[in-house]
Amino acid sequence: MPHRPLLILNGPNLNLLGTREPDIYGRETLADIERRAREKAESLGHSIDFRQTNHEGVLVDWVQEARDTAAGLILNAGAYTHTSIALHDALLTLAIACIEVHLSNIYKREDFRQRSYISKAALGVICGFGPKGYELAIEALAAHLATGSVHQ
Amino acid sequence: MPHRPLLILNGPNLNLLGTREPDIYGRETLADIERRAREKAESLGHSIDFRQTNHEGVLVDWVQEARDTAAGLILNAGAYTHTSIALHDALLTLAIACIEVHLSNIYKREDFRQRSYISKAALGVICGFGPKGYELAIEALAAHLATGSVHQ
Amino acid sequence: MPHRPLLILNGPNLNLLGTREPDIYGRETLADIERRAREKAESLGHSIDFRQTNHEGVLVDWVQEARDTAAGLILNAGAYTHTSIALHDALLTLAIACIEVHLSNIYKREDFRQRSYISKAALGVICGFGPKGYELAIEALAAHLATGSVHQ
Amino acid sequence: MPHRPLLILNGPNLNLLGTREPDIYGRETLADIERRAREKAESLGHSIDFRQTNHEGVLVDWVQEARDTAAGLILNAGAYTHTSIALHDALLTLAIACIEVHLSNIYKREDFRQRSYISKAALGVICGFGPKGYELAIEALAAHLATGSVHQ
Amino acid sequence: MPHRPLLILNGPNLNLLGTREPDIYGRETLADIERRAREKAESLGHSIDFRQTNHEGVLVDWVQEARDTAAGLILNAGAYTHTSIALHDALLTLAIACIEVHLSNIYKREDFRQRSYISKAALGVICGFGPKGYELAIEALAAHLATGSVHQ
Amino acid sequence: MPHRPLLILNGPNLNLLGTREPDIYGRETLADIERRAREKAESLGHSIDFRQTNHEGVLVDWVQEARDTAAGLILNAGAYTHTSIALHDALLTLAIACIEVHLSNIYKREDFRQRSYISKAALGVICGFGPKGYELAIEALAAHLATGSVHQ
Amino acid sequence: MPHRPLLILNGPNLNLLGTREPDIYGRETLADIERRAREKAESLGHSIDFRQTNHEGVLVDWVQEARDTAAGLILNAGAYTHTSIALHDALLTLAIACIEVHLSNIYKREDFRQRSYISKAALGVICGFGPKGYELAIEALAAHLATGSVHQ
Amino acid sequence: MPHRPLLILNGPNLNLLGTREPDIYGRETLADIERRAREKAESLGHSIDFRQTNHEGVLVDWVQEARDTAAGLILNAGAYTHTSIALHDALLTLAIACIEVHLSNIYKREDFRQRSYISKAALGVICGFGPKGYELAIEALAAHLATGSVHQ
Amino acid sequence: MPHRPLLILNGPNLNLLGTREPDIYGRETLADIERRAREKAESLGHSIDFRQTNHEGVLVDWVQEARDTAAGLILNAGAYTHTSIALHDALLTLAIACIEVHLSNIYKREDFRQRSYISKAALGVICGFGPKGYELAIEALAAHLATGSVHQ
Amino acid sequence: MPHRPLLILNGPNLNLLGTREPDIYGRETLADIERRAREKAESLGHSIDFRQTNHEGVLVDWVQEARDTAAGLILNAGAYTHTSIALHDALLTLAIACIEVHLSNIYKREDFRQRSYISKAALGVICGFGPKGYELAIEALAAHLATGSVHQ
Amino acid sequence: MPHRPLLILNGPNLNLLGTREPDIYGRETLADIERRAREKAESLGHSIDFRQTNHEGVLVDWVQEARDTAAGLILNAGAYTHTSIALHDALLTLAIACIEVHLSNIYKREDFRQRSYISKAALGVICGFGPKGYELAIEALAAHLATGSVHQ
Amino acid sequence: MPHRPLLILNGPNLNLLGTREPDIYGRETLADIERRAREKAESLGHSIDFRQTNHEGVLVDWVQEARDTAAGLILNAGAYTHTSIALHDALLTLAIACIEVHLSNIYKREDFRQRSYISKAALGVICGFGPKGYELAIEALAAHLATGSVHQ
Repeated sequence: MPHRPLLILNGPNLNLLGTREPDIYGRETLADIERRAREKAESLGHSIDFRQTNHEGVLVDWVQEARDTAAGLILNAGAYTHTSIALHDALLTLAIACIEVHLSNIYKREDFRQRSYISKAALGVICGFGPKGYELAIEALAAHLATGSVHQ
Repeated sequence: MPHRPLLILNGPNLNLLGTREPDIYGRETLADIERRAREKAESLGHSIDFRQTNHEGVLVDWVQEARDTAAGLILNAGAYTHTSIALHDALLTLAIACIEVHLSNIYKREDFRQRSYISKAALGVICGFGPKGYELAIEALAAHLATGSVHQ
Repeated sequence: MPHRPLLILNGPNLNLLGTREPDIYGRETLADIERRAREKAESLGHSIDFRQTNHEGVLVDWVQEARDTAAGLILNAGAYTHTSIALHDALLTLAIACIEVHLSNIYKREDFRQRSYISKAALGVICGFGPKGYELAIEALAAHLATGSVHQ
Repeated sequence: MPHRPLLILNGPNLNLLGTREPDIYGRETLADIERRAREKAESLGHSIDFRQTNHEGVLVDWVQEARDTAAGLILNAGAYTHTSIALHDALLTLAIACIEVHLSNIYKREDFRQRSYISKAALGVICGFGPKGYELAIEALAAHLATGSVHQ
Repeated sequence: MPHRPLLILNGPNLNLLGTREPDIYGRETLADIERRAREKAESLGHSIDFRQTNHEGVLVDWVQEARDTAAGLILNAGAYTHTSIALHDALLTLAIACIEVHLSNIYKREDFRQRSYISKAALGVICGFGPKGYELAIEALAAHLATGSVHQ
Repeated sequence: MPHRPLLILNGPNLNLLGTREPDIYGRETLADIERRAREKAESLGHSIDFRQTNHEGVLVDWVQEARDTAAGLILNAGAYTHTSIALHDALLTLAIACIEVHLSNIYKREDFRQRSYISKAALGVICGFGPKGYELAIEALAAHLATGSVHQ
Repeated sequence: MPHRPLLILNGPNLNLLGTREPDIYGRETLADIERRAREKAESLGHSIDFRQTNHEGVLVDWVQEARDTAAGLILNAGAYTHTSIALHDALLTLAIACIEVHLSNIYKREDFRQRSYISKAALGVICGFGPKGYELAIEALAAHLATGSVHQ
Repeated sequence: MPHRPLLILNGPNLNLLGTREPDIYGRETLADIERRAREKAESLGHSIDFRQTNHEGVLVDWVQEARDTAAGLILNAGAYTHTSIALHDALLTLAIACIEVHLSNIYKREDFRQRSYISKAALGVICGFGPKGYELAIEALAAHLATGSVHQ
Repeated sequence: MPHRPLLILNGPNLNLLGTREPDIYGRETLADIERRAREKAESLGHSIDFRQTNHEGVLVDWVQEARDTAAGLILNAGAYTHTSIALHDALLTLAIACIEVHLSNIYKREDFRQRSYISKAALGVICGFGPKGYELAIEALAAHLATGSVHQ
Repeated sequence: MPHRPLLILNGPNLNLLGTREPDIYGRETLADIERRAREKAESLGHSIDFRQTNHEGVLVDWVQEARDTAAGLILNAGAYTHTSIALHDALLTLAIACIEVHLSNIYKREDFRQRSYISKAALGVICGFGPKGYELAIEALAAHLATGSVHQ
Repeated sequence: MPHRPLLILNGPNLNLLGTREPDIYGRETLADIERRAREKAESLGHSIDFRQTNHEGVLVDWVQEARDTAAGLILNAGAYTHTSIALHDALLTLAIACIEVHLSNIYKREDFRQRSYISKAALGVICGFGPKGYELAIEALAAHLATGSVHQ
Repeated sequence: MPHRPLLILNGPNLNLLGTREPDIYGRETLADIERRAREKAESLGHSIDFRQTNHEGVLVDWVQEARDTAAGLILNAGAYTHTSIALHDALLTLAIACIEVHLSNIYKREDFRQRSYISKAALGVICGFGPKGYELAIEALAAHLATGSVHQ
């Protein structure tokens, strides 16, 4: 599995980062985040496969695909975090670890953002650190892959 | 503020780490975690002040003390995470950033662990990565201190 | 922005109008509604871009697209009204106004139709007037565009 | 029934419009709204009977009176929208149509404003368009009266 | 107290009986009910004072007035049954007995009709028997007055 | 059906009346109530069949039996009022009317006595009048039988 | 504004004070309270305008009237405290301060008295001190008027 | 309609059957199930059209398509069972019968799997029998088609 | 165990089938269902033991008895489905499989029929197919017995 | 009352003890428990009357019978603990003390076992100690009988 | 008791007053409040004992101590107001009166601040008046001590 | 472990026993209880270590200490029973058994006393027997220690 990339999936509206509600989500674009993530991953000896979609079904397809092609998964499912049991079920089929990331601290926001179906199927959660959160997730995932288990 | 340490506070029962429910919390002791945290912080040019208590009031005292003595706060409030409005209020009095850490992924556990009063007053949350989570929190906090704002 | 069309988006099952549950939704087809909407808009000096899809992700794509191409948005999200936080978030990224329309009075129907994620991100709501509701929405949107603000 | 007026009833605190919380309710007074409503109605061949009261019982009396004297009803019940089963029951006794209007988008406001007893007895709902909403309601009601049924 | 009348109070919309929703409320008018009630009461040696209002405040005034003028109270508070704590409090100030009556069986109807503030301050409840319920209430009240206590 | 008796069924613990919690239920025994009920029924030209059991299943058997043998049913189901869907379903199979009676005003008592499955399948409810309630129920039932419908 | 009186409004059933449930509300009458309030106010250089009504709508009218005529408002809304959004909205239209008073400690009483719509629009709350509470409210209001702000 | 196939639709993650959580879902693949379903259907004189998708919108498209092309529908909507009002609405537009199938007994599983929007629009439900459930559904559907109505 | 019969238990009010609410439950009697069930079972090499009772305790007795005498259990517990933890516990003591059957689709009916204590202790559930459901259950049970496990 | 036995009543499925779910309920049979209970009671100078039934109605009958024949009651109502208001009411009619016993710690089990109607009418509760709990209950009851009151 | 001081206890984070969230809590320090309280008390012939702690247990200790040493208690329990049943129980052991004070109007703030365990054991509540509230509480307490009862 | 004492811990306000609310808690002091407990323990060959504190943190410290020093734990956590997840977590770290004791039957009291975090981590519960409950707990614990397992 060493040569497989880290799959980093981004859900709905994350393609608008940098323009959308900058007070909440910051001013960096998704391309900026991808660049930061790639540099971080490469510094730790990993490559990444970085994608975005607005479609729940496409996210499910990609998570399923990760079963055979990725070393680990980092998932920012955006609004589907709170509504998609289909994504939750897809994650349960994975033998590889998944780390949930959010740019904002979702626990400070609306009630309907307080429930995450992703958390119930993820190794861990990182939220509130903006683009930096992706770097932290890559570091956590790399450590997990290096030791066989960070701690689960 | 550069010469102030990062204050790392640990709540009830964390002194028993390594012996208590290792399936959930892992086998490293709190001393192990302190050592890892110190090394990480020093590699980033920071010192740490690492403490544990079983008393909610002492945690409140320490958070208040951080106002004048610490560069930033990392808080694993253990069970008080879910019940302490007093800690929540103390955090609101801080001008410095607070990062919430949990060893386990609390969102996979009992219903009464799903509500965090800490999250509502923290910059961000890191949970589920065991002792590694403290290192990630230090890295996030250092980045936050370096840039004036990671993203809030 | 004057030459941009009003974008009118229709969600799942609205393509079946006229055949589906006529007691609730009436006997006019979606093509009939499009025609009425076009005539109304043209009478007020606007063109329209009228679309329908059964896919939540496509609705999100179209709402995002409206940011750069439409003068205003009229949205009948059908069943996604009640479940799509992704649509809610996409609407929040718009600088242009969105008006929510429903053919039936959703507040007289099943409990699960009483919550609208769209309302929380819309200028206003018009429901219960059948196809006539689209004409009212166009009139409201045109007035809003004419005055800079109907009232928000 | 052609010579009967459209009865437009306004509930508690609406007499203060223009001075009360202009950020939410705008700066037009109730007299301004009455004038706009009259012009709109007359342009469609209807007269109006426009009233306001702070008393729930008076609203019930007026709704009952409408049974024999009005062609249709437009009701902005203000705060009684959310608490008055008595108004709800009075509306159920009407053979003529009732349209519910609110100046603000009540679905974006406090939880206790999310329940409307009026909606359960109304033909349709128009909210969020400020004084313009009265004009839209008159247009909808006139169309309903012209065709025997807009769509119910 | 023997020469005081039985006070029979009727709340909002009951003045429309016989025309309003006859499937639920029957075809007898309130005048018919008053006549039946008077005959029943007189057959048991009592006079009645029979009133109706759409105003919650008037009902409270009348209940207060009953303290000094009536032998007992029969109350069909209509929709205020479900919302009026003010009526509940007024009833608590009475030394005389109050019997709650409803024409329809409110426990078979909408959820919002299942809670009665009147019941919590009444001797007993009679519902579902249409106008006959008033006669039953008079009989119960007369028996209560005759014996000092039916059973409370 | 004229010669069929009125079936009066009493549920659990009603056999202890007169000794059990006299503050709530009064001092008359069930035999006293049966005598009063018989006299009342006979005065109206009806006979009664009066029974008591502590067994839910026996109540269901008896209700089923009433389909072919009774002119009408008066049911004080005691505690099963609040828990027995089986009784509710049995009542739905009856073509004859059922009147629900309770000695105490159950709406003034514990929360768990506020829900009645019997009410949802009964013509009407009489509660809070002690033994007198049975007489009122007989009068209501006799009137219902005499007119074909009291009002339902 | 110095010569304007303090407006003291009392809601439903408060006219019965001294006779109604003295265990809860004490034995002083509303006239006693008015006298104590007048003396207290005059000792602080203020006059008072003291009123009572059982009608929600009249309370709303009086609150609106206070906008132009009173220096400040003291409101004991009685049972309307717990149900009246109309009063809440009227209070929001005031530029002058409102202090909520209750004779009894409502937080020790029935569940339905635990929610106050008045509190959400009041400067502060005083409850549980009987007639003395009016004096405390006058003192608080006078201090608020003297300093421009007690603390809000 | 005799020559139309039975349409059998499978939702998200069912393509992974046999590899995904075999303790819950068993070891047969979706191809195995299709083969068993085809054999069963052919033994009863029917053909099948068997499909799978991870996309909610595609399921809605396919259900709509069934209106004109299928004799009946068997639907295992997977995770969308619990979240898709859009599917529920699409089913309501069908004149043909729909049978809901689940491999596992969803009523023994997580709380969020206890609500089915499909059940509310289906003829019946079969769950807990693994692949055998599809055969049972085909038998039930064939019987329904043969008799005009199994029982609805 | 091969010579043991399949035990088929029916709960309260099912003895009235064919006469009770035929719109919901169909016109076949329980004797018809028993005959169909016997034919189906015999065609699969099984005998049946078919019983009905209105008593919860008798159902518990019979389920206990099945431990030593039956090859498998088919249970239509009627209204006790929704209230009987005693039945649930009795089912947990069985080593043989239990299949839950309902004539109607309970998930389309009243809220209080949406919870099944039986489901939590059953292999699978079949509902909505009328008498045909018993045949499907026998087929499922026979397959389960033949293979050692249908899929659990 | 000295010569009356202690009545020990056991509810549904307790006759299966020793075979049913031994992980939860242990391996001793009900006969073993009866023997231990008899020895304990005799050592304290009491006799016992030990019974079991699966029927709620029989438990109610037995509790009623205890009024005149037993010195005290020990009740393990099994599953009826959580659903039987009838048993609760029967206990309220007793002048003698009742002690509630459960073999398992019900507060560690399913949500539906967390509510006990028995507790609300019992002197005290002992749960989680298996058969030993009966001995503890006998000791507590004997002490209660000896002193007139343990403490209530 | 005349020479005993009034005990004034302050809970967590109140030591930070004047620096902490001045928009909510004002700019006066706790020392300022102590001084104002002392002056007010002395003007009424009382001394005070004024303390603060962040520890729930210390507050409990101090309340217990008040039983023998204080004339009355004024308690601002800060965040423990909403969570401490231990404080509630300690207050119930007091024979002297307790008055609850809050600087801010807690009923206008977060949901988790709407429940007060203190209120259920206090004579009365004063909130929303900032430091002035302590003076009002002293006045209320002094009046209560002077008269034997203000009104309870 | 035979020579280790039984640790008996008492939470907040239990030091006031005998003076505090004697109707609920009885008139014996904590010293009386300690004496009875010591005698009981010694009669069974055990010593005890009996403590009380008002501080949650001290209880956590003591429970942790029990890991290495006590043979078993008896815990009456008082009000912390209902709020302390920290105590719950500390109990989970113990290898020795814990028995929960309450003097009163908490299940008959306020709603907020119905939830016990201690029960979820205890072997068993004894409540409602006053001081006698400690003796029963010692007996249960001694039996547990003697046999290796009472039953867990």
